[in-house]
Amino acid sequence: MRLQKRSDYDAVLKEIAGRVGRLAPTGAVADYIPALARVNPDQYAVCVQTLEGGTCTAGAADTRFSIQSISKVFATAMVIAKKDILLWSRVGVEPSGNAFNSLVQLEYEHGIPRNPLINAGAIVVSDELLELYEDPKKTLLHFVRELAGDESVDYDTEVADSEYATASTNRALAYYLKSHGNLRNDVEAVLDLYCHQCALALSTKALARALLFQANDGIIPSSRRRILTEDQSKRLNSIMLTCGFYDQAGEFAYQVGLPGKSGVGGGIVAVVPDVLSIAVWSPRLNEHGNSVLGIESLQQFTSLTGLAIF
Amino acid sequence: MRLQKRSDYDAVLKEIAGRVGRLAPTGAVADYIPALARVNPDQYAVCVQTLEGGTCTAGAADTRFSIQSISKVFATAMVIAKKDILLWSRVGVEPSGNAFNSLVQLEYEHGIPRNPLINAGAIVVSDELLELYEDPKKTLLHFVRELAGDESVDYDTEVADSEYATASTNRALAYYLKSHGNLRNDVEAVLDLYCHQCALALSTKALARALLFQANDGIIPSSRRRILTEDQSKRLNSIMLTCGFYDQAGEFAYQVGLPGKSGVGGGIVAVVPDVLSIAVWSPRLNEHGNSVLGIESLQQFTSLTGLAIF
Amino acid sequence: MRLQKRSDYDAVLKEIAGRVGRLAPTGAVADYIPALARVNPDQYAVCVQTLEGGTCTAGAADTRFSIQSISKVFATAMVIAKKDILLWSRVGVEPSGNAFNSLVQLEYEHGIPRNPLINAGAIVVSDELLELYEDPKKTLLHFVRELAGDESVDYDTEVADSEYATASTNRALAYYLKSHGNLRNDVEAVLDLYCHQCALALSTKALARALLFQANDGIIPSSRRRILTEDQSKRLNSIMLTCGFYDQAGEFAYQVGLPGKSGVGGGIVAVVPDVLSIAVWSPRLNEHGNSVLGIESLQQFTSLTGLAIF
Amino acid sequence: MRLQKRSDYDAVLKEIAGRVGRLAPTGAVADYIPALARVNPDQYAVCVQTLEGGTCTAGAADTRFSIQSISKVFATAMVIAKKDILLWSRVGVEPSGNAFNSLVQLEYEHGIPRNPLINAGAIVVSDELLELYEDPKKTLLHFVRELAGDESVDYDTEVADSEYATASTNRALAYYLKSHGNLRNDVEAVLDLYCHQCALALSTKALARALLFQANDGIIPSSRRRILTEDQSKRLNSIMLTCGFYDQAGEFAYQVGLPGKSGVGGGIVAVVPDVLSIAVWSPRLNEHGNSVLGIESLQQFTSLTGLAIF
Repeated sequence: MRLQKRSDYDAVLKEIAGRVGRLAPTGAVADYIPALARVNPDQYAVCVQTLEGGTCTAGAADTRFSIQSISKVFATAMVIAKKDILLWSRVGVEPSGNAFNSLVQLEYEHGIPRNPLINAGAIVVSDELLELYEDPKKTLLHFVRELAGDESVDYDTEVADSEYATASTNRALAYYLKSHGNLRNDVEAVLDLYCHQCALALSTKALARALLFQANDGIIPSSRRRILTEDQSKRLNSIMLTCGFYDQAGEFAYQVGLPGKSGVGGGIVAVVPDVLSIAVWSPRLNEHGNSVLGIESLQQFTSLTGLAIF
Repeated sequence: MRLQKRSDYDAVLKEIAGRVGRLAPTGAVADYIPALARVNPDQYAVCVQTLEGGTCTAGAADTRFSIQSISKVFATAMVIAKKDILLWSRVGVEPSGNAFNSLVQLEYEHGIPRNPLINAGAIVVSDELLELYEDPKKTLLHFVRELAGDESVDYDTEVADSEYATASTNRALAYYLKSHGNLRNDVEAVLDLYCHQCALALSTKALARALLFQANDGIIPSSRRRILTEDQSKRLNSIMLTCGFYDQAGEFAYQVGLPGKSGVGGGIVAVVPDVLSIAVWSPRLNEHGNSVLGIESLQQFTSLTGLAIF
Repeated sequence: MRLQKRSDYDAVLKEIAGRVGRLAPTGAVADYIPALARVNPDQYAVCVQTLEGGTCTAGAADTRFSIQSISKVFATAMVIAKKDILLWSRVGVEPSGNAFNSLVQLEYEHGIPRNPLINAGAIVVSDELLELYEDPKKTLLHFVRELAGDESVDYDTEVADSEYATASTNRALAYYLKSHGNLRNDVEAVLDLYCHQCALALSTKALARALLFQANDGIIPSSRRRILTEDQSKRLNSIMLTCGFYDQAGEFAYQVGLPGKSGVGGGIVAVVPDVLSIAVWSPRLNEHGNSVLGIESLQQFTSLTGLAIF
Repeated sequence: MRLQKRSDYDAVLKEIAGRVGRLAPTGAVADYIPALARVNPDQYAVCVQTLEGGTCTAGAADTRFSIQSISKVFATAMVIAKKDILLWSRVGVEPSGNAFNSLVQLEYEHGIPRNPLINAGAIVVSDELLELYEDPKKTLLHFVRELAGDESVDYDTEVADSEYATASTNRALAYYLKSHGNLRNDVEAVLDLYCHQCALALSTKALARALLFQANDGIIPSSRRRILTEDQSKRLNSIMLTCGFYDQAGEFAYQVGLPGKSGVGGGIVAVVPDVLSIAVWSPRLNEHGNSVLGIESLQQFTSLTGLAIF
């Protein structure tokens, strides 16, 4: 049984919002960046965007939040679109089984990050962007605006600056990559781009829409513009499924069963291939750095709709 | 575009067999068990079983081979069918990022294997089977015969004995599990069951049919008998996708995009949910212990048919 | 200033016993073997044996206790005496930086234990003894009796049996060594010898005397019998210094500054080259498995006498 | 038998220089810094300084070379002299069992380096120096000049600049320490001091003399100035013995049996407590980064003189 009418998803999202609203709050807001720590922890929003153009929401779906690591998907897509296979000599496609900022795997594997969705891999992606585009910060912003269909999407420069100033672990990763010859540009230039990317602020509505091309074999449904080939699009989905949730990736695939990506701002976005995209936001995080109510909501969604990929 | 007529798959399999037949042979047969080392390395078979009951093959699809680690899927299904969630306090659902027989993760995680499809996890599954069934060796055999619709399926006792006699690494894993209180039965009884399970001999045709219930939400299509609930079935598929190919799991998801499981006998089986199952066999293995032509064939299959789940 | 008269050491030991007797008890008795767990935790003894034949004691210096890992020094000496350098292709001489029973290092270094004083290395030593001697259990017993000058030294068979029955971690290590070709004899025969060796029961007085040859360039002072060459003796001392206290080896060298070895029975033995040996026993252990009052006593001893090697 | 007359050591050093001069050259010069890579690989020098004031040499004992990691001993001594025990909450005293620049241990142990003689630990020591001294670069230089009794000792600024420019791995370590709150000063200021320290250039003669206070319970023999207490001096020797040669520390203790420290410039310095210090230099390194002929020479020295500490 597959629900496809707009009103159906509306009812499902209302049901989910009601259920998670009755749960006792658990988890804490990310506090390693002052700008993130100040966020009201009890906000909530969920949004479904269908290929047919339907938009269903519950909660504060127009409120912007810092998408953080979710941006890694967009940055990776930009590189794949230009280079495809070439990236994979510098970064793998295997789940890491470690925390998002681990250096251990990087040492054992001589400076080749496991995948582009952990920090080390995303830093290599930023390094690629610096070579592929003249003004990558501007190009990335325009790319995400186009995907989201929202010209008001922007970097939250307060978050970007705060992140840049406190990025010791990411600097360690970047210099370690450099020591293995796997970072070509100036470390500070790479980190500046990386921190801006993480500081992209989108509403749940914009975020769901921005990933909709990944439910559509690589084509933005509204404009019909192809971003990735069908093959590239499928592969990016597979990377999200196996690597999108750090050391909780297997559990997310097991509990939810959709390709997706989370960020420490409390957002999660996922796609049902050929059907829809869904974004959810709630700032309280579990010990893996993933949104507690975000995961709960998506689990409810695939249970209620039967829309897992397996 | 989805192909669903029997003749279509016949043509696709012929095409694939032709293409891989023209490749220069690479990789070597597993040699750690004498009985496996003697296998002719240049055999090949592929078989598709559709939910509608169609069977398409190319190559020696009736020749039996040792399914080895593929059996972990059947054993896990037997435990899930009886206990579901209870197993997950003793074994996780995360990809390991390590080789199939690594002890490192087990020490860092205090004796809890990452997932039931690596050796340590499968040994815990065997331990569960010894508690859940009076004669688990017989019950498992009957279970696989029923799934495969083939009463002649049997243990290759030469392989089982050979494996049991040389199982030093698996004994190390089992005793290490025991030292952490995560193995309840006698180590030798557990290993005897485990080695028999690995020594199940099935043809490609029987193997594809045996996993068809996982393309059908947990129900054997021919008999309509439900093995797992829809939810359990989806979750087992997700574990196969994230953990079915050891430290090549991400790459398999990326290149092929189907839930599946490989064995060092050279077999691989995978499912396209709601559509079909596919088994392929070729004994030469790559450095990760996965069949070279098996992976190549499945990659061709999803390319030619567009049947990946993403 | 070096104290060498018997009465001097008597005074020093009385002083130390008094000081540690006033400390609040901390640490717990090893409980992984029932026979060890039953030991009265508040016993204490210390004994100095000088090259001139003097014996000074404080506390229950005639009470026997299980020397456990201290036996690794005697077993290693027996192998060195017969084979010297040949052992070092099967086991290293580097500190491990890990707990005494870690499997991690063994996997990264392909089955070659770091040194003969951690469990994995001692199991390889047992394997060597099984090849070098017709009845190694008897030969080892006679060897330790000779060193201790005490024919009543014996295996505590209750401890040996208890240890053998619960040796899951050591079995895991042994099978893992076997899987790497670094164990030649039957695992159970090796573990039987290993568990007996650990179950040697000596008094503090006998233990200090048993290691006195290592303060005397390899010669038993009383009988003038040479056990090791001067060179071999020095090297065994260096291994004790760098590897004798597991992941507390550096701290022991730093705080005490003598080559020594500890056991989870609460014993520690050390040597001052050219001067004396000293044994101390107190069953309460710190988190590294080393005797709390044992280390405290030895630290006091080198402070009071200035007898560190540095 | 202990040799103590000046002429005796002269003969021993001549003998050693002759023996190692007849060996076929093996190993390669450190090439990660251009300024080091240009050094003539086949230079050799050895020097003994006795407590009585004797100086014996063979080879180019007045030629200066980059002492690199040997400087860690002097920097550590400067911190111990001011703070002693306080340092040990920020850095341990255990051998690491890993390569000198490993990040793995640092992650597992939450940013606390194993000891002050590996890079991460030495960077923490530099951080301490920046807090303890107003102009630590100048103070360190004067300290080493005083120890060496040689006012012409200086930083090789070409090496320091070259090292600073290519210090990606050390920057990674420093930022990782900072991310764990174990680096208080500006990373670049710390690395500038660290790189200068490593770029100290001393002759073998000056180097042996500079460490002579460690053979003399912490007192410079010529001036009778106490640098460390007897206890601190012994402890620094124990750290050198267990940690001075990276992952070859155990082997050095085993083969040579003296507290010492090596550097990738090809220098090694060691002490025989209460007797002498010895420095040797030869630029070709083994796979652990230690001088091939340096280790060989010291092994010959303790064999010929019997002067090991064990």
